[in-house]
This record gives sequence, structure tokens and C-alpha cells, in this order.
Amino acid sequence: MKERRDLDAAEAVIARPAGSVERLIALAAPDMAGVDELIVARMQSQVSVIPALAEHLIEAGGKRLRPLLTVAAARLVGAGGGSSLKLAAAVEFIHTATLLHDDVVDGSQLRRGKVAAHLIWGAPSSVLVGDFLFARAFELMVETGVLSALEILARASRVIAEGEVLQLTRAHDLNLSQATYLEIITAKTAELFAAAAEAGAIGAGAEASQAAALREYGRNLGLAFQLADDALDYGGVTETLGKNAGDDFREGKATLPLLLAIARSGPREVDFWERAIGRKEQTNDDFRRARELIIGAGAIEATLDLASDYSDRAKVALKIFPDSEWRRGLESLADFAVSRRA
Amino acid sequence: MKERRDLDAAEAVIARPAGSVERLIALAAPDMAGVDELIVARMQSQVSVIPALAEHLIEAGGKRLRPLLTVAAARLVGAGGGSSLKLAAAVEFIHTATLLHDDVVDGSQLRRGKVAAHLIWGAPSSVLVGDFLFARAFELMVETGVLSALEILARASRVIAEGEVLQLTRAHDLNLSQATYLEIITAKTAELFAAAAEAGAIGAGAEASQAAALREYGRNLGLAFQLADDALDYGGVTETLGKNAGDDFREGKATLPLLLAIARSGPREVDFWERAIGRKEQTNDDFRRARELIIGAGAIEATLDLASDYSDRAKVALKIFPDSEWRRGLESLADFAVSRRA
Repeated sequence: MKERRDLDAAEAVIARPAGSVERLIALAAPDMAGVDELIVARMQSQVSVIPALAEHLIEAGGKRLRPLLTVAAARLVGAGGGSSLKLAAAVEFIHTATLLHDDVVDGSQLRRGKVAAHLIWGAPSSVLVGDFLFARAFELMVETGVLSALEILARASRVIAEGEVLQLTRAHDLNLSQATYLEIITAKTAELFAAAAEAGAIGAGAEASQAAALREYGRNLGLAFQLADDALDYGGVTETLGKNAGDDFREGKATLPLLLAIARSGPREVDFWERAIGRKEQTNDDFRRARELIIGAGAIEATLDLASDYSDRAKVALKIFPDSEWRRGLESLADFAVSRRA
Repeated sequence: MKERRDLDAAEAVIARPAGSVERLIALAAPDMAGVDELIVARMQSQVSVIPALAEHLIEAGGKRLRPLLTVAAARLVGAGGGSSLKLAAAVEFIHTATLLHDDVVDGSQLRRGKVAAHLIWGAPSSVLVGDFLFARAFELMVETGVLSALEILARASRVIAEGEVLQLTRAHDLNLSQATYLEIITAKTAELFAAAAEAGAIGAGAEASQAAALREYGRNLGLAFQLADDALDYGGVTETLGKNAGDDFREGKATLPLLLAIARSGPREVDFWERAIGRKEQTNDDFRRARELIIGAGAIEATLDLASDYSDRAKVALKIFPDSEWRRGLESLADFAVSRRA
């Protein structure tokens, strides 16, 4: 869905020199090279359309944040490499499968700065290659023999689908409650972050308390990322974002900045929101007005404050682990998730 | 895809009083009641669109032939019930997920005699509910703790997707070789039959030779069913089929009866096939002519002869098991697959 695309744009920012986040990326580089090898090897098929389509999306980048969580969680627990690389590749395949299906569902034009796969190979191929990658993910997980990691990622896959359907049925609903909004982003974004970290821990033989802590870290990190991203869609600058500001607005998507602004609106503004979002009748100048209303209502700040809360909770969850380079790396990632205010 | 829909129509015939097949169905009835309960319980979700859409398809029937194979294989090995019911429900969920995605891919109008789900709830919901059911299948499998059954069904899911993509890229190809045709139907149909039987055996603690025999049985049974179905599309009568004869032709699908007829055609007929299938320019009378050419070329008989070969191979594969009601039931199912000539 849309927010997931935003998130990929946000992930792209991580590639920039960014101090401490750079350190985590450097720390994880050897493991991530192994993950990349697995990804390339396992997206192969005798049916040539499959690797061609998968490569288009996978090699377009995205910072592989979710598999990074898996390998970092395993390293934090103390037993990186090995099965954590396969679990990380499986996590990326699940993510890629959902991106392929989301782009078909949304009729998206762009993904990771490239023309969406379904516009090149057709929606049928995107659906079926998504299915292929999803199945491949489970084949990789089976190879690790870690049944509890399979359980975590099977459940996550199911919860993501539920979140997507929920969003589909409520996308343009101005009366969406904040609780339902949080339910949607928890299911469609935070669940895979949580599962990626937890599965990495479990694969590394973590104790139950460690696995639960890393799950908690991942869940809160995912919420922080998604909230910051929803804020940046109204508060960011296109050049900085690596995507167009205003995409959520133009798609009429009810994200938190918009819901907060609506809650604080007078009758005249309510008419505006009902036309522009509820009925999706928009003029060229509407995004500028929406942005003014949202900023004026303090909705960007409120959304980023909530993102900061989740980022803090993510860091707190790591406190059961002794200080280490990996813990500091994951903490800095939580800071990074909400530091993109400018 | 199309042939899979035909197959569902063929499966519906199994419900009729048909002597020995009735016996297998009666034998398996207690287990299948347990499978049905699991299916209904596990298609539930707080997101109400999901069970509504899943129910539309699942309760429309289809004879649950694939889960029947799973429970019968477990019983033949001697340890039915238990985990075989969960594996059987998982098999049906995988099948249902592929049906949902296939209907979107093909733009199909009808499924199991009802309006296709994507025409009621929209293609996006069909794609996402398919993903939900696929994930649910893996959750069910994880619950059994039988990692080798997971491996078998994860691989089958991947092979099915590969077969679907292969078919998508070769659907209207008059020069499709018989080898490629068999490769396609092996992947998209026979693989799940094989995996359903093998997983049931493995879940029941089968020896390697027993599991391999049941896989071989399932694979050959699936090929026999699909070939008979492709023949019936030209040789059958609409009322008997429970679907319209000629669907494959109207979709321009290169199935074996057509490929055999083309191979035996003179230059004038080749022009006809190139127009009607290659370019899909069809007139109302074309199906009648195609049927005459195909019957005249002996292509129906040749296709059914090949189906009979596979049916025989399926029965031979069962010979390692001592005589029992379950073995006889599975043998009669193989006979049934190709006995629908009239």
C-alpha cells in the first residue's frame, strides 16, 4: 500500500552518510552480503519472467531494512550468520511479495523510483511472481529447521494481509478512528518489523525474554517509521523525501496527520476534507491548502511526537541487553526513524 | 487458470452416485467432516470481508479432492486423523488461494457455478484474501510440527506459481510442444495432487518408500484428471460437464487435444487454427468446426488414452501397499478420473 511505498523511500535515506546509522550498516555488511547472495540465488527460476520481474524490484534497492533487523537481532543475541541469513532473505521475499501485490491493488505507477513491475509485465505476472516469492520465503525458512521462526513469519504474513484488507475497506473514511489507523499500520507495517527482529533472535537461540524484547523493539520501530513517513508526506520536501510529497493526500488516504487536522477543523474545513478526501474531488491547489491546514492544526508535530514515543519505546525494549555495538546500532536506527524532521 | 476451473467442474461429478468412488467418499467422511470444521474455523478473521469472500468460494463446493487425498493417504499408511486433518485443510487453503489469484489473472467470470469473487468484492480483495489463505495454510502446517510436510507444500506452492507463469507466457502458442504442455499441467495441477498425498503420508509417519509411492500416485492422478478434463472441453456435453464445453477454445488455450489436432492438420486447417487460437479471432461457428477437426483427428481419443496411461501408473504406484479398503478407494478414484468418456 501507499505507506509501505513511502517507507521504501524513507529507507533509501538510510543509505546516506548518517553517522551512527552508517555504523550499523557497516557492522552488518558481511551478513547482508550473504543475505544478498541468497536473495539472488533463490529468486532464480527456469521460468525466465520470474527472475526478470523479481530482479527489477529487488535490485532497485530499498535498504533491506527488514532483513537488516533479522541479522542484527541474531548478532545482538550473540549467534549471527547461519540460519539468520536465510531467515533474513525470507523476510525480504515476504516484503517484496507484498509490494508486488500492493502495487497491483493500488494501481501504483512507481516503486523505488522505477516504473512499477505490473506496468511492464502486467498485473497477472506481478500477482504470480508475488506468490512465487512468498512460497520461496517458506522454502528458505523450512531449510533452517527453526519451526518457531516459521510460526512467527507465517502469522506475520497473515496479519499483513488482514491489515491490507482493512485498509482497503477504510481508505477514504474521514471518520476513521485513531485506534483503527494504528491497528492498520500495526498490521501492515509494524508486524513484519516485529517478526523480522523476533525471528532473527529465535533463529539465534534467544531466550524467550530476549525474543520478546526484540519483537517489542521491532514493533515500535515499525510504528515510528510509518508515523514519521505519514508526517513527511505533508511536512517534507520532495527533494529530501526521494518521492513526491502529497501522495497520500492525492490518493485520499486517511493517515494520522489528516485525521488529527480533521478532528481540529471548523465546519468550513470539514466541507473541504469531505470533498477532497471523502469524494476525492481535488483541484491543483488543494494539496497546498491541506498542508496549511494540517501544519496549522499542529498535526505534523503531534504525529512526529507520537513517532518519537514509539522510537523511545523501541530503545527501552533493548535495555535488557548489555551495552554492545549492536545494541547501539539498533538504538541509533530508532533515533533515525524520527530524526528526519527537517 | 482455466484447466483448474475445469477440474473443479470435474470434481463436482464425483459427488454423484458413482459406485466405488462413493465408497471412498463415505470412508473418508468422518475425517473430511473434521477438515471442514478446520476450514471454517481458520478462514475467520476480525476483518469481515475475509471470511465473507473465502466462504463464497469455499462453501460453493468443489469436492475437496485434494484434502481427500491427504486424509486417504494418511489412512492408507495407517495413522489417519490428527495432523493429517490440519495438513488437509492447509492443502485446501493453498488450492483456494490459487483459485482466487487465477480468477484475477484470467479475468474469469464464473467459479464453481457462482460469480467469481473478484467481480463481487473486486480484484484487490481477491488478491489479498488469497494471500491471507496462503499464510493461514502455513500457520496450520506449523501447528502440526511436521517440517517435512511443510517442505513438500512450500515447494508445491512455488512450483504451482512457476507453472502459472509459464502458462501465462505460452497460453496462445500454437507451437507449444507436448513436452511443454505436460510441464505446465504437471506444475500447475499434478504437483499439488502429489504434494497433498505425500504430505498426508509423511504426517502419518510413513516410511520413505510409502511417501514416494503416494507422491507418485498423486502426480499421475493429477495428470489423468487434467488430461481428461482437457479432452472433455472438446468431447463432452455441457449438461454432463457442469460447465460450458468449449471454454478452453474460446480462451484460445493450447491444450493437448488442440495441439494434437494441429499436428495432424493440413494447410487449410492450420490457417483456421492460426486465426481462431493464435489471433483469437473467432466466429460463432468456430467451436463447432474446431470440435469436428479435433474429433476427426482422433485427438480426443489420444488425449484420453494418455490420461488412461497416467491413471494406470497411479494404480501401479499403490501396489506396494497391502490390499485394503483405502487402497481400493484410491484405485477407484484413479479409474474415475478417466471414466467420464460418455
